[in-house]
Amino acid sequence: MNEKVAMDKLKGLGKDIHDEVVKGEPPKFETVLRSRGNIKYDEGVGCLRLGNKKETRNFLTVSQSRTFMQTVAIANKTKRFLKEDLHTSIRGLYYQLKFSLGENLDESLFEEQGESNALIEDLEVALGIKREDLHLTTDRKGVVAGPMKIRDKFGGEENTIDLTKQGRSGWMVPSDVDNGMEFMDVDAKYILVVEKDALWQRLNEDKFWKKEKCIIITPKGQASRGTRRLIRKLADQDLPVYVFTDCDAWGWYIYWTIKTGSMNLAYLGRDFSIPESKFLGVTMSDIEKYSFLKKLTIKAKDIDVKRASEMMGYPWINKHKEWVAELKKVLKTKQKIEQDALQGQKLTFVGEYIKEKIKNEEWLP
Amino acid sequence: MNEKVAMDKLKGLGKDIHDEVVKGEPPKFETVLRSRGNIKYDEGVGCLRLGNKKETRNFLTVSQSRTFMQTVAIANKTKRFLKEDLHTSIRGLYYQLKFSLGENLDESLFEEQGESNALIEDLEVALGIKREDLHLTTDRKGVVAGPMKIRDKFGGEENTIDLTKQGRSGWMVPSDVDNGMEFMDVDAKYILVVEKDALWQRLNEDKFWKKEKCIIITPKGQASRGTRRLIRKLADQDLPVYVFTDCDAWGWYIYWTIKTGSMNLAYLGRDFSIPESKFLGVTMSDIEKYSFLKKLTIKAKDIDVKRASEMMGYPWINKHKEWVAELKKVLKTKQKIEQDALQGQKLTFVGEYIKEKIKNEEWLP
Repeated sequence: MNEKVAMDKLKGLGKDIHDEVVKGEPPKFETVLRSRGNIKYDEGVGCLRLGNKKETRNFLTVSQSRTFMQTVAIANKTKRFLKEDLHTSIRGLYYQLKFSLGENLDESLFEEQGESNALIEDLEVALGIKREDLHLTTDRKGVVAGPMKIRDKFGGEENTIDLTKQGRSGWMVPSDVDNGMEFMDVDAKYILVVEKDALWQRLNEDKFWKKEKCIIITPKGQASRGTRRLIRKLADQDLPVYVFTDCDAWGWYIYWTIKTGSMNLAYLGRDFSIPESKFLGVTMSDIEKYSFLKKLTIKAKDIDVKRASEMMGYPWINKHKEWVAELKKVLKTKQKIEQDALQGQKLTFVGEYIKEKIKNEEWLP
Repeated sequence: MNEKVAMDKLKGLGKDIHDEVVKGEPPKFETVLRSRGNIKYDEGVGCLRLGNKKETRNFLTVSQSRTFMQTVAIANKTKRFLKEDLHTSIRGLYYQLKFSLGENLDESLFEEQGESNALIEDLEVALGIKREDLHLTTDRKGVVAGPMKIRDKFGGEENTIDLTKQGRSGWMVPSDVDNGMEFMDVDAKYILVVEKDALWQRLNEDKFWKKEKCIIITPKGQASRGTRRLIRKLADQDLPVYVFTDCDAWGWYIYWTIKTGSMNLAYLGRDFSIPESKFLGVTMSDIEKYSFLKKLTIKAKDIDVKRASEMMGYPWINKHKEWVAELKKVLKTKQKIEQDALQGQKLTFVGEYIKEKIKNEEWLP
């Protein structure tokens, strides 16, 4: 469905440019400014997104001519990927551009991949579509298991994948969870996002997802685009989303990036944010609550403390008094604690910790 | 099966120490030296492994007492993991040690995870077992698809996973492919190892594994322990193993680590090496052979050239004239090329390239 929309939008872009040429007007391409000044926190939705400032690239303006041509070249290539029904990475796109354009031009239109990356973001924003809808694959990292099935149409085949039958491994979260994919028989009470794969493996061995009727996802650190879309789509089915990370600024920022997005990814807006997410832990308060954790804390490094102090400056974080209190504790005690430490006394305690937190609604906003 | 052996060996270790104490002898622990001087290239097998130099840790020698106690503590903990039939990561083990030993001792027995890591390697070598057999999970990264099934017994359940029905994602290679796991109905002509996930996704979309009757695996860069064991076990079924990486010293070294192991992993020996592997490409010679590649090369950085020059010094590499010729081309032309560049002219060319190389037996040793 999205692919169809993407194709129509690419055609529309081509038609507009064509019409301008026919009318004798200079062809142009309008997109939304992605620079810091146009990033805002959308209080209503609860995520970072771009404002309304526009930017126009004009073919006949010398300084913009190259960028304009590059954008058109990318639009043209991805239109062909859609038509051929083939996918590639942005690195593959880069080589396609470098190959086909290098021949007919004095200078190669694309020297660095950085150039094509930025222009893909422009195109996503200008047309209001995702790169995945343009058949561009992205980095994969996350893993999922739990009571649901995936109907997957890809490469001319259709498979139904039961996420309760993936054994010790779980199912790897793909690059694109929208096109040619359906979620079926979702029979979960909630979604649990676990920062580290090691903890995910621990919970998977305990069949936590079966006993608790939940879907467990690990982004393996910062969440990939595919993982964020997967969580977003499940949240759209009214499933609560709980996030469980290390107790330090980096772990907490993984939570915040899932919840509100980040500066760099603000152009993606709500499609890749889950403002409904709640933070289960690990919190600085846990160190006081669970006495066995006291001797398992780690001394925070200067960079950890600096990062915590930066987070204190983000209005979408510091509007929550609970988070200010947690961040202040980091600055004061200069301690941190890993989620792995919850296994210190008993390997299976991780699941008990999560169940207790959810039962007592003991989470941070 | 391995777990049973591991348990017996842990018990044997305990019994030896106990007997020494009863006899009034100082308890000791003997392992194989893992330092550079005891690493050799085994010409017969074709992999890096440890030599015969031993090291003894004596409880009553002041400088060795701490290490001895740490080793016994790790043996004790992993024995409990086996008995409880639960797994954890080495980080989880570290916290278990830190927690349980911290209580009864003046100083904490484990201050840094680095200490426990090195001692786990000691234990693997001393007992001739793998950490996976001690229920320690390791980092996961690789993905696999193709004509085979996995029977997986884990966490009290049994699943049969058909690796032809994993859709766009493939099956994530787990941490342990030995214990509680069987490979069934392997109906492949060969194993193809593809360095980058982006290329694996490309081949998976083309259903390359179906058309070619092969198993495609991406380690996603350097291969994890699980991925290396998976390839080793498939090679033990007499399937040829072909490796396909970037054309630069880093990509080539991914091949060499799969084939012969590396200095750091020499203690693992043949269990994690695949000396039978053959290198399909990308080679420097391909730049001359496939004319479209000429304009898709990248200038090698100083560090690339330096690494190539180092590789030239490894006897297990420089004994092959084909590799010396390739490395010399890097030093001379200072160029490199990514496997992604094969898509420059046509997205589906990657598969054609691989088929042609295999058909013409055009590989490097």
